Amino acid sequence: MKKITVLGAGMVGKAIAIDLAKMYQVRSADISQAALDELSAQGIEGRQADLSNTDVIKEVVADADLVVGAVPGFMGFQMAKTVLEAGKNLVDISFFPEDIFLLDKLAKEKNVIAIFDCGVAPGLSNLVVGYHHQSMIIQNFECYVGGLPKTRQWPYQYKAPFSPIDVIEEYTRPARIIVGGKEVVKEALSECELMDFGPAGMLEAFNSDGLRSLVKTVDIPNMKEKTLRYPGHVEYMQVLRATGFFDKEPIMVNGQMVSPLDMTTKLLFPKWKLEKEEQEFTVMKILVEGKENGQLKRYTYDLYDEYDPITKTSSMARTTGYTCTAAVSLVLQGEMDRPGVYPPEFIGARPSCFKLMLQYLQERGVAFKIKEEILA
Amino acid sequence: MKKITVLGAGMVGKAIAIDLAKMYQVRSADISQAALDELSAQGIEGRQADLSNTDVIKEVVADADLVVGAVPGFMGFQMAKTVLEAGKNLVDISFFPEDIFLLDKLAKEKNVIAIFDCGVAPGLSNLVVGYHHQSMIIQNFECYVGGLPKTRQWPYQYKAPFSPIDVIEEYTRPARIIVGGKEVVKEALSECELMDFGPAGMLEAFNSDGLRSLVKTVDIPNMKEKTLRYPGHVEYMQVLRATGFFDKEPIMVNGQMVSPLDMTTKLLFPKWKLEKEEQEFTVMKILVEGKENGQLKRYTYDLYDEYDPITKTSSMARTTGYTCTAAVSLVLQGEMDRPGVYPPEFIGARPSCFKLMLQYLQERGVAFKIKEEILA
Repeated sequence: MKKITVLGAGMVGKAIAIDLAKMYQVRSADISQAALDELSAQGIEGRQADLSNTDVIKEVVADADLVVGAVPGFMGFQMAKTVLEAGKNLVDISFFPEDIFLLDKLAKEKNVIAIFDCGVAPGLSNLVVGYHHQSMIIQNFECYVGGLPKTRQWPYQYKAPFSPIDVIEEYTRPARIIVGGKEVVKEALSECELMDFGPAGMLEAFNSDGLRSLVKTVDIPNMKEKTLRYPGHVEYMQVLRATGFFDKEPIMVNGQMVSPLDMTTKLLFPKWKLEKEEQEFTVMKILVEGKENGQLKRYTYDLYDEYDPITKTSSMARTTGYTCTAAVSLVLQGEMDRPGVYPPEFIGARPSCFKLMLQYLQERGVAFKIKEEILA
Repeated sequence: MKKITVLGAGMVGKAIAIDLAKMYQVRSADISQAALDELSAQGIEGRQADLSNTDVIKEVVADADLVVGAVPGFMGFQMAKTVLEAGKNLVDISFFPEDIFLLDKLAKEKNVIAIFDCGVAPGLSNLVVGYHHQSMIIQNFECYVGGLPKTRQWPYQYKAPFSPIDVIEEYTRPARIIVGGKEVVKEALSECELMDFGPAGMLEAFNSDGLRSLVKTVDIPNMKEKTLRYPGHVEYMQVLRATGFFDKEPIMVNGQMVSPLDMTTKLLFPKWKLEKEEQEFTVMKILVEGKENGQLKRYTYDLYDEYDPITKTSSMARTTGYTCTAAVSLVLQGEMDRPGVYPPEFIGARPSCFKLMLQYLQERGVAFKIKEEILA
């Protein structure tokens, strides 16, 4: 039986471990013993470990055939580098800010496969682009995505379904989009527009820096990713940002140097925490437009996924986690035959892999509604 | 020539000193030498002084016939007590939170007059109530008041025309209003409604704790004070308050105990500071309804006053300061013949004093539009 070590037992990391344990021998590593205890009840080996320590990482991955990375973004790059140095295959959803291709040489040297950004968006969105990129000349790619609580509570109407500090990153990091073949940098939270998302209702979509590897890997002249929130949230985030509440640089407060962001997260994050068994959903719309077989066509992928009350698994854990475990299956089944770094669009470029992944997700109830239109 | 010491040389304290210097020998005392330098250019004696020190206060008021208190609210009570203990008449606009009548016995013992809350609101509003209270059975008193910048800048559309920490107090201290003869406590910032204020446009009015002495001194069954802001401001203040940004109690941030309010004021107040020579205005509407000579009547007092570009005096300094200096004139002219504590409604209760004060203000361009209506 193949052995997998899952680094990180947060909400998504836990769902990944549980899904993989149906087929593989799984070990979970996390700093939180409480998180591991929940998994051990399901027969998964837990190892309390400080994953900011590279020696600790090397030790917990030593006997693994494959490693899953599910740590907060700021820890991701160092963790990934350590896993690859240890000569282990890696599937990662840590979404670290560094360029994933910096690790390509190392992965090739170690003869291992390293799949990054393998969640919903980035993740499924890249997969779809990679798939259509093979058969059409894509002119326009748009991705709209959000994870939201079912119950809207004033003022923020938001609960963070993953590391909340990574949410603030989305609100502050300039968003790179592609317009007319050129990279254009937009302010985060900008170009906020109302759009109807069916079962999720009317939501606000704003620019966020989510294209990531697509900026480099595909030559599509128009690409953008926008994040979705309930109407009103963005305005409050803009106010907090403009006032300086998201500033990292410490300022003097009554004789002490304090980072405004550190104070803000202390006040904000308890309010953004999903309650135990709180209902949430993931909503995504992907548009791919271009020329295919001489026709101007549009493919629309709609995803709406909810919290699973039976297994008590959040929708964000389901959609992110099962995309990740689908990729794990591909690697362990030998579908990826070439070492190196893979963003998900490289997987999508192989139609058999694309179909296997969508199949894997559908078996777990995560299914796109796909619409094909001929525009001209 | 009568001698006056003005404690505090902030925006309003300065305007008071300049106005009084036309008729009296004035000394200004403040911790800021820069503020005093501006006044000495106009021939006013400056004394750099730490007004949180009672010995210092005693020394700077020693030879004064009357003292004006214009310090931030939190310093006000101690300052007032010290001035009265020194046996000096006092006219105060510090708006401290403590009950002014706690000082009545002391003022009487020392045989001095102490007028408190002698600004716009509290101040002019109380004066109007006191005046009409003599000749009518008032059923309803409403006061709407705000000081705002002419230029609206996102997000707060606000500049604090007086001590900004006293503004936050208005946003957090529960508001006492009188409904059907009973005191009712409303949350600050509550019952926000849009109202048209003519030259000031459409503004939002919300409950604030501004009735102060009126709660005790008059038996009017319905009384409320609401503060005015540009639409949108109140919502952002509610969000900041709900998130905890106005909490005084320190919390642990990265190993240091920090008060969220202290951090917030560091970020917010620079954005709320009026620029040099920035145009602002004061807007106030007072409604007094009741039975007079067998008729149901309504008196409406409308005030709209702007920054004076000739003397570079802010409207808040004009309206607050000249109400204060009008009261100083009354005291020095011997119009107040009985020692003790006076809220402005006690002055308004003397028709001759009321008319002298309105006359004094009108000479300085601060004039009410008064409307009298017979309702039934």
